[in-house]
Amino acid sequence: MKTTPAPRAEALDDTLSPLSLKRVGIDTYRENVAYLHRDCALYRAEGFQALSKVEIRANGQRILASLNVVDDSHIVDCGQLGLSEDAFASLNVAEGHPVRVSQAEPPASIPALHRKIAGERLSRDDFRHIIRDIAELRYSKIELTAFVVACDRGELDREEVFYLSDAMSRVGRRLDWHEHPVVDKHCIGGIPGNRTSMLVVPIVAAHGLLCPKTSSRAITSPSGTADTMEVLARVDLPFGDLGDIVRTHRGCLAWGGTSQLSPADDVLISVERPLSIDSPGQMVASILSKKVAAGSTHLLLDIPVGPHAKVRSMPEARRLRKLFEFVAGRMGLTLDVVITDGSQPVGWGIGPVLEARDVIRVLTNHPEAPMDLRQKALRLAGRMLEFDPDVRGGDGFGIARDILDAGRAFEKMQAIIKAQGGKPFDPEAPPLAPHRFEVVAPVKGVVTAIDNLRLARIARLAGAPKAAGAGVELFARIGDEMAAGQPLYRVYAAYRNELAFAHQASERDSGFGLGRKDEITRLNVEF
Amino acid sequence: MKTTPAPRAEALDDTLSPLSLKRVGIDTYRENVAYLHRDCALYRAEGFQALSKVEIRANGQRILASLNVVDDSHIVDCGQLGLSEDAFASLNVAEGHPVRVSQAEPPASIPALHRKIAGERLSRDDFRHIIRDIAELRYSKIELTAFVVACDRGELDREEVFYLSDAMSRVGRRLDWHEHPVVDKHCIGGIPGNRTSMLVVPIVAAHGLLCPKTSSRAITSPSGTADTMEVLARVDLPFGDLGDIVRTHRGCLAWGGTSQLSPADDVLISVERPLSIDSPGQMVASILSKKVAAGSTHLLLDIPVGPHAKVRSMPEARRLRKLFEFVAGRMGLTLDVVITDGSQPVGWGIGPVLEARDVIRVLTNHPEAPMDLRQKALRLAGRMLEFDPDVRGGDGFGIARDILDAGRAFEKMQAIIKAQGGKPFDPEAPPLAPHRFEVVAPVKGVVTAIDNLRLARIARLAGAPKAAGAGVELFARIGDEMAAGQPLYRVYAAYRNELAFAHQASERDSGFGLGRKDEITRLNVEF
Repeated sequence: MKTTPAPRAEALDDTLSPLSLKRVGIDTYRENVAYLHRDCALYRAEGFQALSKVEIRANGQRILASLNVVDDSHIVDCGQLGLSEDAFASLNVAEGHPVRVSQAEPPASIPALHRKIAGERLSRDDFRHIIRDIAELRYSKIELTAFVVACDRGELDREEVFYLSDAMSRVGRRLDWHEHPVVDKHCIGGIPGNRTSMLVVPIVAAHGLLCPKTSSRAITSPSGTADTMEVLARVDLPFGDLGDIVRTHRGCLAWGGTSQLSPADDVLISVERPLSIDSPGQMVASILSKKVAAGSTHLLLDIPVGPHAKVRSMPEARRLRKLFEFVAGRMGLTLDVVITDGSQPVGWGIGPVLEARDVIRVLTNHPEAPMDLRQKALRLAGRMLEFDPDVRGGDGFGIARDILDAGRAFEKMQAIIKAQGGKPFDPEAPPLAPHRFEVVAPVKGVVTAIDNLRLARIARLAGAPKAAGAGVELFARIGDEMAAGQPLYRVYAAYRNELAFAHQASERDSGFGLGRKDEITRLNVEF
Repeated sequence: MKTTPAPRAEALDDTLSPLSLKRVGIDTYRENVAYLHRDCALYRAEGFQALSKVEIRANGQRILASLNVVDDSHIVDCGQLGLSEDAFASLNVAEGHPVRVSQAEPPASIPALHRKIAGERLSRDDFRHIIRDIAELRYSKIELTAFVVACDRGELDREEVFYLSDAMSRVGRRLDWHEHPVVDKHCIGGIPGNRTSMLVVPIVAAHGLLCPKTSSRAITSPSGTADTMEVLARVDLPFGDLGDIVRTHRGCLAWGGTSQLSPADDVLISVERPLSIDSPGQMVASILSKKVAAGSTHLLLDIPVGPHAKVRSMPEARRLRKLFEFVAGRMGLTLDVVITDGSQPVGWGIGPVLEARDVIRVLTNHPEAPMDLRQKALRLAGRMLEFDPDVRGGDGFGIARDILDAGRAFEKMQAIIKAQGGKPFDPEAPPLAPHRFEVVAPVKGVVTAIDNLRLARIARLAGAPKAAGAGVELFARIGDEMAAGQPLYRVYAAYRNELAFAHQASERDSGFGLGRKDEITRLNVEF
C-alpha cells in the first residue's frame, strides 16, 4: 500500500537560468525552508508540489529544504530563491550568489524511516544514516515528526536505544580530556530550584576529580543551571577557554552549546517539545549521547520521582534506570543512578538570582542555607566521589561534607567563577526584582503537596529566567504546619504586568495543598 | 514519562497594546503560521518557545497558528503580527486590523492524539474532535504528522476506520440530492490513461441514474479526470450550477473541490503526500468520507492490481476490499468493489488531450478507439447500472453496451459538456503539443511489461498536465510482438527543454520490457 518514494529526480533547472540567493529573515527553527515565487519559471516548469523537498546547489554546496510558495515579491521575486535563517546558514553562500534548484531525491535514510514507521527493528547503520541526515537538516519537520512518533512508546528495544544514542554521539563534536575518570552528573529535570550541580561540581573538583560540567538553559522551566550560573559568571565560553579552565581548576559550570555536541538532539527536540513527547528511549539517547560526546567516562544520574515530576512512580523510575544502565554499559560509560524525592521544589528559591543565593548560602555554610539542597548535593557529590578508585565505598558522603564544611568547595567555586569572568554578587543583597506579592495560607493546616509545575509556571509568568531577579521564594515545605494568613511564598517580578499575571495565576491555583498531616503521601524513594 | 500538555495559558497580551495584522504572502500549505518580530515586546514578554502554538483573536474570531520568529522588518515589524495565506484566510479579518496574540491552549483533541500515539484505541468522539480540529487548521504540521503516523500500519482497527471516515464526512459541506439511488464510481488510482469515468458517467446518466461525479486534478500523475475533462469543458463550477446541471442531465463531470466536501482530508493529504504514506485505513477514510459528503448512496470502487499499481497482489486487494466493504456498510453506503487488471496503462493516451481523444473515440465508436478502455468502461458501467433496482443481475453490461453503441452515451456527454461551458475540441485534430520524439523497440520481442510509474513520470516531465497537449501516446500493449525499431510510444511536449528532459528519462529507462511471450506474468484478477 505504501507508495515508494519518488523516482530519482532529474534536474530540469540546468536548462533555465540560475536564481539569485536571498536570505529571508524567518527563523524556521531547525528546518530548512526555501521560498520560491509562484510565478517563477522554475516553479512552473518543475511541477513542484506543495511542501516538496528541493535541492539547492551553489558553489559546490548542496542542501535540502522544504518548499514554501510565495506570492509577495517583497519576500522573494521571480528571479530569486529565498532561504530561511537555518537554510541560509547551512548553505553558507553569500546573498545574490547564483543558485540552482531542483526536485530533491529524498534523503538516503528515508527507506529506513519507512521501515521504522512500519514497525520494523532498525540496524545500527540505519540509525547512523537517519541521525546523520537529521543532524544535517535534511529532514523536513514532517519527516522528523514521523521518526519521533515511530520511535515513541517503546517501539525501540534497548539495543536500538543504544544504536540511537551511539549514532547521536557521533555526529557532533567530541571532546577528549586525555584523562580518566572524567566525571559528570545529570538530572532528568522537572524539579524547580534543584541547583545541585553548582554545589556538586566545586566539591568534586576540590577533591581533584575532573568534572567539566556543561548545563542547559531553561526551556520550559524558570531557570536552568546555566541561567543561574550566569548570575555569577559568564557561561557561554568558547571551547578553547573552557578547556583551559577545566585543566587549571578541574571543573567548570558552562552552558552546553548542545548544538555542537549533539546536533541531532537539538533538531529532534524541535519536534519533541511542541508535541510534549519525551519517551524513555529518546530521553536516554539525548542525555547519554551528549555526555559521551562531552568526553565523560563516569556519570551520576539523578531521577526525581514525585506526583508532579517527570517520573511519577517507583516502578517507572526503575524501568528507566535499567534502560539507562544498559545503554550506558554498551557505550562504555560508567553509570550510577540515584532515584530521589521529586515531590516538591528543592531549596528556597526558584529563578536565577534566588537560586544563586541558595547556592552561595550552602557553599558558605550560612545559617539560612536551604538544608534540603545541601543534603541532596552532599549525597550526589558523595556518590560521585566514589567514582575515584581511591575512595572506599560509603566514604563519599563524609568526604563531600568535609570539603563543604571546610570552605574548600566555596574556594573552588570562587576560582571557577573568577576563571569564567565573575560578576559581582552579594548574597545578602541579591538583585531581586522590585515588584512583589505574597501568597498566604488561606486556612490553618499542614502543607500536604506542592505542585512543581504550577510553581514553575508562576515563576515563569513573573519573568524568570529572562528577568534574572524574578521568581518565587518559598517559605514552606511539605509537612510544615501553617497558620491561616501565614505566607507560603513570595513572587518577584521585574514588571508590573508580569506581576499581575503571576498574581492571577496564583489566585487561580497557588500550587500548595493544605490539609491534615495524614494526607501527605510519601514515596518510598531510596534516599 | 509523557509530560502533560502545558497548563491553561493565561493571556499576557491584554496588558500590552494589540498588534496590527499583516498578510504575509507565503503559502504554508494547510498550516496556519504566524510571524512575530523577535524584538516585539509581546514575544519577549510571553516567553514564546520556537514553534509555539499561539492563539490570535480579532473581531470575535480566534485561530491557532504555529509561531515563526522573524528578524526582518520588511516581513513584519515590531508592531505587527503576520499571518501566512492559510492563516489570514482562516482569521478572515482585514489587514491593519488590531489583533491580540497569546500562548494557545493546545487544541482540545491533543490528549486523544497522545492516546493514539501511545497505541490506544480511540472512541468515535475522539475521532470527531481530532478531525474537527484538523479541519479547522488547529493542528500544526507536527501534530498532524503525529496523527498520520500513529494511525498508520494497521494501528486503526476497522471500527476506528469507520469512526475516522464518519468524522471526516461530517466536518465539511454535505450534499443531499433528495433522490435514491445516487450512484458514483471511484478508482483508487495509479493507472495512467484510465479515464473510465468520462465514459461511465454518460452511460449511467443516459440510463437515468443520478451520477453527480466529482473528480480530482492530477497531483502526482500526468492527468486526473478533472484535467482531462477540462480539455472539453469547464470543471470548476460553483455548487449551485453543478446542482442545476445534475438535475437537468442526471450527471456531471466536475472538479471535486475536495476542500469543501472533506476539508480534513485536504489537510491530512498535506502530510501524507510528502511522507508517501497511504495506509489502507487512511485511503478508505479519504475516499468514503468524500463520497458520503457528496451525497452518494451507491459506490462502485475500482481497485487495479499490478506490479506497478498501488495494490500489488490479490491478497492485498482482497484485504483492502473487505475494509472498504465494512466501513461503507457502517456508513450506510452501498458498495460494489471490482478488482481490475492494473498491469499496464489503459487507453492509448496519457495526458489531458490524448486521453480526451481516447474518450471521444470510444463514445463515437471510432475505429481507432482503444478497446481496453471501452471494455473496462462498459464493465464498470454495467455493474453500476445494476444499482438500479429495475435492472436484473447480469444485464448491466448489455445495457451499457447498447447505450454506448447507439450513440446515447455520446449524446449525453455532449449535453453535459455543453452545460459545463463546452470548449471546441476536434478529436481528429486534437491540440497536441508540437515537440515530439518516438521511443522504439531496441530489439525484436514481445512486450512483457509496462511500468505505469515510469510512463507517468515521462508524461509529467514532458509537461502534462500543465501543458494539456503534452503526454505519451502508446502504440503497444503487453503481449504485442514488436520488430526492432518499431515505435513503442511517442512523447509530446510543449517546450524544447521539457522534451529534452522526457527524452533523457526515456533513454535511462523506457518503461517497456521486451522478451519472450512466456515471460509475461499475468495476475489472476476477476475481470
